[in-house]
Amino acid sequence: MLNVHLVAHTHDDVGWLKTVDQYFYGIQNDVQHAGVQYILDSVISSLLVEPTRRFIYVEIAFFSRWWHQQTNATQEIVRNLVRQGRLEFANGGWVMNDEAATHYGAIIDQMTLGLRFLEDTFGSDGRPHVAWHIDPFGHSREQASLFAQMGFDGFFFGRLDYQDKKVRKKNLEMEQVWRASASLKPPAADLFTSVLPNIYNPPEKLCWDVLCADTPFVEDPSSPEYNAKELVQYFLQLATTQSQSYCTNHIVMTMGSDFQYENANMWFKNLDKLIQLVNAQQANGSRVNVLYSTPACYLWELNKANLTWSVKEDDFFPYADGPHMFWTGFFSSRPALKRYERLSYNFLQVCNQLEVLAGPAANVGPYGYGDSAPLNEAMAVLQHHDAVSGTSRQHVANDYARQLAAGWGPCEVLLSNALAQLSGFKEDFTFCRELNISVCPLSQTAKSFQVTIYNPLGRKVDWMVRLPVSKHVFLVRDPNGTTVPSDVVTLPSSDSQELLFSASVPALGFSIYSVTQVPGQRPQAHNLHSIFQKPSSRVLVIQNEHIRAKFDPDTGLLVEMENLDQNLVLPVHQAFYWYNASMGDNQSSQASGAYIFRPSRQKPLLVSGWAQTHLVKTALVQEVHQNFSAWCSQVVRLYPGQRHLELEWTVGPIPVGDDWGKEVISRFDTALETKGLFYTDSNGREILERRRDYRPTWNLNQTEPVAGNYYPVNSRIYITDGHKQLTVLTDRSQGGSSLSDGSIELMVHRRLLKDDARGVGEPLLEAGSGLWVRGRHLVLLDKAQSAAAGHRLQAEKEVLAPQVVLARGGGAPYHPEVAPRTQFSGLRRELPPSVHLLTLARWGPNTVLLRLEHQFAVGEDSGRCLSSPVTLDLTDLFSTFTITNLQETTLAANQLRAHATRLRWTPNTGPTPHRSPHWLVSANITLQPMEIRTFLASVQWKEDR
Amino acid sequence: MLNVHLVAHTHDDVGWLKTVDQYFYGIQNDVQHAGVQYILDSVISSLLVEPTRRFIYVEIAFFSRWWHQQTNATQEIVRNLVRQGRLEFANGGWVMNDEAATHYGAIIDQMTLGLRFLEDTFGSDGRPHVAWHIDPFGHSREQASLFAQMGFDGFFFGRLDYQDKKVRKKNLEMEQVWRASASLKPPAADLFTSVLPNIYNPPEKLCWDVLCADTPFVEDPSSPEYNAKELVQYFLQLATTQSQSYCTNHIVMTMGSDFQYENANMWFKNLDKLIQLVNAQQANGSRVNVLYSTPACYLWELNKANLTWSVKEDDFFPYADGPHMFWTGFFSSRPALKRYERLSYNFLQVCNQLEVLAGPAANVGPYGYGDSAPLNEAMAVLQHHDAVSGTSRQHVANDYARQLAAGWGPCEVLLSNALAQLSGFKEDFTFCRELNISVCPLSQTAKSFQVTIYNPLGRKVDWMVRLPVSKHVFLVRDPNGTTVPSDVVTLPSSDSQELLFSASVPALGFSIYSVTQVPGQRPQAHNLHSIFQKPSSRVLVIQNEHIRAKFDPDTGLLVEMENLDQNLVLPVHQAFYWYNASMGDNQSSQASGAYIFRPSRQKPLLVSGWAQTHLVKTALVQEVHQNFSAWCSQVVRLYPGQRHLELEWTVGPIPVGDDWGKEVISRFDTALETKGLFYTDSNGREILERRRDYRPTWNLNQTEPVAGNYYPVNSRIYITDGHKQLTVLTDRSQGGSSLSDGSIELMVHRRLLKDDARGVGEPLLEAGSGLWVRGRHLVLLDKAQSAAAGHRLQAEKEVLAPQVVLARGGGAPYHPEVAPRTQFSGLRRELPPSVHLLTLARWGPNTVLLRLEHQFAVGEDSGRCLSSPVTLDLTDLFSTFTITNLQETTLAANQLRAHATRLRWTPNTGPTPHRSPHWLVSANITLQPMEIRTFLASVQWKEDR
Repeated sequence: MLNVHLVAHTHDDVGWLKTVDQYFYGIQNDVQHAGVQYILDSVISSLLVEPTRRFIYVEIAFFSRWWHQQTNATQEIVRNLVRQGRLEFANGGWVMNDEAATHYGAIIDQMTLGLRFLEDTFGSDGRPHVAWHIDPFGHSREQASLFAQMGFDGFFFGRLDYQDKKVRKKNLEMEQVWRASASLKPPAADLFTSVLPNIYNPPEKLCWDVLCADTPFVEDPSSPEYNAKELVQYFLQLATTQSQSYCTNHIVMTMGSDFQYENANMWFKNLDKLIQLVNAQQANGSRVNVLYSTPACYLWELNKANLTWSVKEDDFFPYADGPHMFWTGFFSSRPALKRYERLSYNFLQVCNQLEVLAGPAANVGPYGYGDSAPLNEAMAVLQHHDAVSGTSRQHVANDYARQLAAGWGPCEVLLSNALAQLSGFKEDFTFCRELNISVCPLSQTAKSFQVTIYNPLGRKVDWMVRLPVSKHVFLVRDPNGTTVPSDVVTLPSSDSQELLFSASVPALGFSIYSVTQVPGQRPQAHNLHSIFQKPSSRVLVIQNEHIRAKFDPDTGLLVEMENLDQNLVLPVHQAFYWYNASMGDNQSSQASGAYIFRPSRQKPLLVSGWAQTHLVKTALVQEVHQNFSAWCSQVVRLYPGQRHLELEWTVGPIPVGDDWGKEVISRFDTALETKGLFYTDSNGREILERRRDYRPTWNLNQTEPVAGNYYPVNSRIYITDGHKQLTVLTDRSQGGSSLSDGSIELMVHRRLLKDDARGVGEPLLEAGSGLWVRGRHLVLLDKAQSAAAGHRLQAEKEVLAPQVVLARGGGAPYHPEVAPRTQFSGLRRELPPSVHLLTLARWGPNTVLLRLEHQFAVGEDSGRCLSSPVTLDLTDLFSTFTITNLQETTLAANQLRAHATRLRWTPNTGPTPHRSPHWLVSANITLQPMEIRTFLASVQWKEDR
Repeated sequence: MLNVHLVAHTHDDVGWLKTVDQYFYGIQNDVQHAGVQYILDSVISSLLVEPTRRFIYVEIAFFSRWWHQQTNATQEIVRNLVRQGRLEFANGGWVMNDEAATHYGAIIDQMTLGLRFLEDTFGSDGRPHVAWHIDPFGHSREQASLFAQMGFDGFFFGRLDYQDKKVRKKNLEMEQVWRASASLKPPAADLFTSVLPNIYNPPEKLCWDVLCADTPFVEDPSSPEYNAKELVQYFLQLATTQSQSYCTNHIVMTMGSDFQYENANMWFKNLDKLIQLVNAQQANGSRVNVLYSTPACYLWELNKANLTWSVKEDDFFPYADGPHMFWTGFFSSRPALKRYERLSYNFLQVCNQLEVLAGPAANVGPYGYGDSAPLNEAMAVLQHHDAVSGTSRQHVANDYARQLAAGWGPCEVLLSNALAQLSGFKEDFTFCRELNISVCPLSQTAKSFQVTIYNPLGRKVDWMVRLPVSKHVFLVRDPNGTTVPSDVVTLPSSDSQELLFSASVPALGFSIYSVTQVPGQRPQAHNLHSIFQKPSSRVLVIQNEHIRAKFDPDTGLLVEMENLDQNLVLPVHQAFYWYNASMGDNQSSQASGAYIFRPSRQKPLLVSGWAQTHLVKTALVQEVHQNFSAWCSQVVRLYPGQRHLELEWTVGPIPVGDDWGKEVISRFDTALETKGLFYTDSNGREILERRRDYRPTWNLNQTEPVAGNYYPVNSRIYITDGHKQLTVLTDRSQGGSSLSDGSIELMVHRRLLKDDARGVGEPLLEAGSGLWVRGRHLVLLDKAQSAAAGHRLQAEKEVLAPQVVLARGGGAPYHPEVAPRTQFSGLRRELPPSVHLLTLARWGPNTVLLRLEHQFAVGEDSGRCLSSPVTLDLTDLFSTFTITNLQETTLAANQLRAHATRLRWTPNTGPTPHRSPHWLVSANITLQPMEIRTFLASVQWKEDR
């Protein structure tokens, strides 16, 4: 008997053509007919009509909002439906996150938020058993690894390369075990993965939603529209055909799609009839059985089949849904939003940490009600696969930014409360949100002010503070009152200044520096080495104790980089180019757009073959300012002690007056013999090897030599010849590739004139005249075997950079009885370098969520043994609270690790060890390479803060 | 306090852009999103959610079908909702019938069918109290009269002339008492009539249906979409403004529209909020109260206001929704369908009568299961305001015809059973459905055959039978075996023949004639007076003992008519013309279309100024064949004894190769001094006076001198100078007018190239090359004071013409024990000429529905006193059954007349007498002029058939 599992579902984008609120309420239905409040109303009442009906719901951002608007009676009805399995949650994240442009930390946060709602509301009845990423545009290996660590039994998705899908259908490999980590021991990161038959849509002709126009069942033979017999025959044929691509006698059909089930009765009424009429055919010998099911139920049946499954070890990028149709544009779309998201991740972690470190005083304090929840929710929303991906409409992108900004506010209050509590100074704290464009009214006007620098890392950092100031000389004092060196430098092509000084901040703590204008003094023209001219024949060089960078004196372009510590020299030519976005051509009508990258030609054009340069050398910084064009410039920078070269690029607004859409890249060309290989991170964690014009699991027919070799770069990309490694760290997600040996390119900005026909219905023009985007690439040159230590630790510093908070200073003491503090650490001892404090966040009144991560992969660092397992004692680790109880949970903290079980699958590579329940026996924790361990700690805050 | 009655409703066309079945099931939702099954599912479940919610449903064709598909449990739930008044029926006809192109008999039948379903299903709980014609395109006075006689308390509609509406709003005459009969004594035909504020749509911005895109309520002030406050203010303003056009402190808002409430939750959820939020404003001093209501509840409040209302005595035709936009095209659209509907009415009455006369043997007999219900339902569907009106899409019009054709089948079985039962002959009965195009295989091939002619009138008729035959001579014998005169004539412009003989058929009975081919004999060229040539100078005349008609020998056109009995001579020029349909012009973009008539110029063009003629004179017929063009011809005909001139026109396919849409009229021009006046019937019953470029209740600004003077002609139009009256009877509904004194025109056919933008979205081109339409105009010339006797009785014969059934003859006797009958009457005595047997139909196993009508108006016939009250005794009136009990009901037979009460309204012309309950005391029935009396009779069929 062939069993057809009908999965009734709706796919509710948390923003896309409409904002989250517009989708929830059903506003602007002329733009897209979609109203989630009605969907949930309708599904619940339809489930009540007939007990065999089942439905899955996915997006908790919507569900939780709806839930809070229901009466107690309705809530009780829903609890019953969940208890009875008639309403089942799948995935259960706040959103269905993007997998290409997301950082693993933010993925874990958003999954934790959604799953926690379900756990709090429905207990284990509401806990999803399967991950359900039916729409994201390609699938990362890290995502699968995280899902495995969250305890999911399996994973369903819809989109994969069309060539890949064809091969899988033929080879019966639509379902496999995905081994999603090269470091974690199987089956820790093994995830059973099922490719759905029709993305996530119903079979043709069987869509009975208000949004479809398929013919409903007409059972009355006297009606001229009678079709029941014909439809049943059609369905039987369809089921048989589909079963030929799958291994077992169970198949699944997704009965739903985007924002469907607003009138669930239409769907269910016809599905009821389908089930009844098709199963009635069994009396006539039919061997097809249809049933209402869920992915978890289907998965359970697959598991019972007790088969051996092939194993996949790479990922599902890039995604192409046809020749010339590579969804590699969204890796870079909306770079400003992508950066704002990453910066907000940073700020949220600071907010979370200070909420824990300061205890309840962080929430209720002199500055009002401090709250991390709004930013936490906003950040979760941003992970949606049309948010950080850059694939929403413009007004929706604006609303995402609004949500982030709205989330920052309560966190700023929280930070103020916490800093007052921890420092003892009740200052008028100021948060300069526009430091990226050198705007900060306080530092630009005050004669003296105070700079609190908070470091969210588990280790001390030294960090160059840069603040916009007026044309004065300033005296900077460290937390002990000692004057530290400072400098005022002029910004490129402007009359504005920034004050520079190096701050040293303890682990998980802050240092307070004070800045005072020196009356009467104007900053000297002490940028002695400035050159305001076209590059001459003199050699242009910047260097510090670790790095030297050379520039071609004729072109002003970077031409060489040297690692002075390791005596490595590498000629590196860096320049900006742009691809002309295709508007469609003879080969394919596909245009480049928000999703799709398709250059009209393989070779990009130089923005400029040379740059007007300006050299700045002071004791605290060396910079080459490169001006390529009116819309493209760069500062190449070295601070003392820095082991990387910083390239701060500014691109935009991209001109499109010539009617050419442009996709701008920064490209590094070297002579390294890289043999077609390059390496990109997966969601900021593990590294995947990429090979040009190649896919590990099928014989690629490459139709787009540029776009078809692009991969998501969340945090880093590198190339190596086995000896030298050139790594570029990014400050946000970007698309990147290596299109010829020795080359690395990253797409920094794109502006397009045509929609790419994937639904968004707008060209990626961005508001008005386009956006001006600034970002940083950190370039590291290292020996291959020791490169990881450099890029891992630097990347950690980038994603959790120090937070600067300003104040006028001289505020009243907050705790008159206690001496104020200008320096503070939340840790009693620093964490070892291989350990990353991934999460420290308030969970409950006396509970804290703690995640510790080994941030090195197996074998990645041979030199300093950073890839070795590391043990640390959590006892008394934190300075402001003591841990009274510690429970280990799965990654999303929604079940105790000791209680968690997953379905076991047998890979064809041999069985994996059965791991016995994991009981925490002490606070002495060992982390294996790439392991994340998640704890819920009962804590007690200390009296003396 | 201003009370705003929200009436939640859906308007479900019984066919329009989709067929009835497509609408019911929700098929072809890409054409129009509409699925009635879902609407009813959805409304029922939404009503259950909140007990204050109310909803009205209207179209019983849909509701009854839905009802039969429900489980007992759902039916019980619905019964409860109806009992509690949460679901209320309005109107309650099978459909919401058209008022312009419908015959009163068919209106009564369709209302009876729908109301009976409600009475049988819900008892008096389900009985509608108001008539609800929110969409029909203008309103007839007869419709209002019928509604009053059905017992409705009031009438709501939406569409009236834009000038009329403006005046009414200003004068507070949106609500009035409509005195809908000039004959019936008030308040018998008085109907309180309310014009809805916005046709039948919700106010702007307040449409919360799945088909709308209005913004739903957002009550959460933290949402960027928060709008609750603003919406409440908007609503308060709206209510206040609307109340200024109505008399009481109650107003009504129609919250719904076409096929809305498919997802009722969307509507109700927002209406709940509206009511709650608006009424909450009362605490802040607001004087507006909103409530879920129904039209009946609103009407009740109006009645309680105890005001005096102005009185209307004319009708609401023609309807214009703007300058140049007269909905007078649909009076004539799809003339073939209009005729098929009228013919089916005739056949259904025959079927109903024979079902009663033959008793149960009609249903179960030798020919299978005979059933009048399918044709009854199909006819009811045809009354829908997009069906017989001709305003549906082509494929829907085809489906209407299919439904009629499907309905004829079971009636043919019934007729066969009944005729066998009543005649005693078990013949192989044949129904020639294509006699209109002279096709009947049996009569055309058989050497001998038998012709049964059934007469559905209450009086004997003499009728000229015409049957297509082969080229032979035939011998025709009457029921007594006596040979009667017969003739074979050649049809115009063809080689085909028809056999003619005059049959005499008793009241409500049949005569069987036999026809035998005379072997060897060919019909002689006995059309001795035939002229096959262009009209010469000889005078062309046809005449019988009553009428003489003269034709111009040069043009071949009719030029004079003479009533020989009354010595009246009237020069009458008759010819065909066509208006060029406007495609829109500088004055207005309005094109002529299915709904709208708009000629591009006032003067129509002659189809031809002369006709090729052919004269046929035999003992049984005199005909002038006029051939005007390839697509327009006419036979002008006189049979012996006939008091009217018959003009059988054939028009079509109308050529549109010149890209000109054409609207073809037949025009009669006389010198009668008619002073701008002419007269048209209202739904085939009472007569309304029309005056050119004039409306009785407002100062008309005439924008279309032709279309703005068109009125519906259901059965007749006449002009008179006070002495002579020229009457034209039609065989179907047509548009007609008198555009200059002494002139009458009727639109016989139209074919258009542009849609008129009223939603149907198709030009009225009709399938393929267009349709060929044949019809008859009967022209009567009489003295004005005695004209009614002529046209009333002739019109009765037209609408209930004899039915011809053929058989080969020689069938086996059906009741061997009883002698067969060749002649039969169902009546023991003929009805007086002023009495029309409107309905004789089976109601239950031993119950019969009987309607008797006085078919003359007050003062209409002075000569023969046909306008006098008439009394007749029903005792033993019928020959095949006896009436054992007689109960009088209201017109639609859904309540006993003795129990029926209606709300009383005080007209400003003075109070009307309160009529005490009407108890039937004997079977001696008196009919007042234009009175219809309806009875349910318990009957007992006699043993001897």
